[in-house]
Amino acid sequence: MVVVSFPDAVLRDAVGDVAGIEPVLWDPGTGPAPDDRIEVVVAPYLGAAHKLAPVADLPNLRLVQLQSAGFDGVLEVVPEHVAVANAAGVYDAVTAELAIGLTIASLRGIPDAVRRGDEARWEALGRRTSLVGKRVLVVGYGSVGTAIARRFNAFEVDLTVMASKARAGDDLVDTVHGIDELAELLPHQDVVVVIVPLNPSTSGLVDDAFLSAMPDGALLVNVARGQVADTDALVKHAGRLRIALDVTDPEPLPDGHPLWTAPDVLITPHAGGNTDALVPMMAALLREQLTGLAAGDSPHHLVRPIVKT
Amino acid sequence: MVVVSFPDAVLRDAVGDVAGIEPVLWDPGTGPAPDDRIEVVVAPYLGAAHKLAPVADLPNLRLVQLQSAGFDGVLEVVPEHVAVANAAGVYDAVTAELAIGLTIASLRGIPDAVRRGDEARWEALGRRTSLVGKRVLVVGYGSVGTAIARRFNAFEVDLTVMASKARAGDDLVDTVHGIDELAELLPHQDVVVVIVPLNPSTSGLVDDAFLSAMPDGALLVNVARGQVADTDALVKHAGRLRIALDVTDPEPLPDGHPLWTAPDVLITPHAGGNTDALVPMMAALLREQLTGLAAGDSPHHLVRPIVKT
Repeated sequence: MVVVSFPDAVLRDAVGDVAGIEPVLWDPGTGPAPDDRIEVVVAPYLGAAHKLAPVADLPNLRLVQLQSAGFDGVLEVVPEHVAVANAAGVYDAVTAELAIGLTIASLRGIPDAVRRGDEARWEALGRRTSLVGKRVLVVGYGSVGTAIARRFNAFEVDLTVMASKARAGDDLVDTVHGIDELAELLPHQDVVVVIVPLNPSTSGLVDDAFLSAMPDGALLVNVARGQVADTDALVKHAGRLRIALDVTDPEPLPDGHPLWTAPDVLITPHAGGNTDALVPMMAALLREQLTGLAAGDSPHHLVRPIVKT
Repeated sequence: MVVVSFPDAVLRDAVGDVAGIEPVLWDPGTGPAPDDRIEVVVAPYLGAAHKLAPVADLPNLRLVQLQSAGFDGVLEVVPEHVAVANAAGVYDAVTAELAIGLTIASLRGIPDAVRRGDEARWEALGRRTSLVGKRVLVVGYGSVGTAIARRFNAFEVDLTVMASKARAGDDLVDTVHGIDELAELLPHQDVVVVIVPLNPSTSGLVDDAFLSAMPDGALLVNVARGQVADTDALVKHAGRLRIALDVTDPEPLPDGHPLWTAPDVLITPHAGGNTDALVPMMAALLREQLTGLAAGDSPHHLVRPIVKT
């Protein structure tokens, strides 16, 4: 039997029985592990990477399975001989959907409609911005970025996508531009959606120069990680630009922070992943992963490969 | 020369010179026509049909060109021998985009995020509803309904569409269901978007029985006309259902009306059409229409055909 720790009973029950797997309950953020036999740790849904530190004490650990797509900080905390897998795919649709929702809400004035509705009064929103015909740049073209691009493509936009390196296109775009073309492309965009992984090369990517290159009235959407954008620069350009953020730096954004009251800024509190699709999709990923492990297969979705010791 | 009245200079200038067309400025809602030679009246963007009544005094009138897709009440006001054309197509993309935006905003809690943002405080939205895998019914499958369906199709939903009569499907759906299947299909939907024309058979379509047939927590979106839904029934089911409306009955919804404060109701003030895409798309439609008329062609987009007198 492969002993696997789950951070909560809801997820354990959603996964159900898997032949060859013995489930135990353990959230590494709450204290030492209850069982030295644990070989696989399923990390909690939310929580800073440093809370995973107790996994280092497990003598038989071979895999940490994250429930997130991002894994910033995790590889520094999990011992080097332990493999790490993310939940690639689980967040594609739900994050992409929020990115589109934030875009349309911001362009079409839904926040103003909410405010007037709360005052129980009808007031025309005036002429707002539609997506049709607009130039949309998706910065980051992994699985979530592709899901975002696929949705935007249905809105009759002029779509450009960008990854860390230029490469050939796919069914959605003729070409994937490289990040080195950013300065050249930004001045020509109406909407820029950022969905890059957080790493040293993307930290602070959306800085004063990035935002200065965007034309007046353009919309920046950040559904990546808060540290991908420079918060002071966001505050500075808010109003000249429209800004919609599902992530902030710091996060949670402190009460009363200037970004809350900056003009034309719409913030959702890191809500990209927490939907009713989460448990069923995560359970399906875990069932597949654990069934394979019980059968002796290598794990999928590795962000750090297995080291033979 | 064909004399054409435009309701405002912005639209006239956006259309520009058209060979064989002499433009004059006239908004029928403001008083008698300035010129008996007017053969074509371009109606104002907004305004009740009865405001078009002065067109009846024009001896040479042969076409009223609406700026709207809907034409409820217009045929009763415009003399029978005068053709009426709508602005079919101009609203497809922008209305569809708002329908998707209202859907995602409502399901993902964007109104709550706006409220917390205005209080400058971060508070998790909790587990919300994603579109992925959900059953979506689009009631009304004309050009706007098709544009809505096309966009939903990119969100990995289980899509069903319905028109006044059942017919074969297209590239989006296997079949177009008939409105007689409504009672059978409603209990199985997570999202129902209404985009039918307003006429005697659709007035009050979304009544207590319609809403009662929708399952708890489902979302109703009305981007058709306010009178398609029974307002008292909307108030009654708000909370058990989620409701997002771009149109209301009466409209404007009076200050302090109970619908404003009913739970889980998101209202935009008939903002489906008023975007930066409107003038260029309307001007393009008018240029095509007027160029044809000057050349002696029959007008397009007729909702009441030409009567030879």
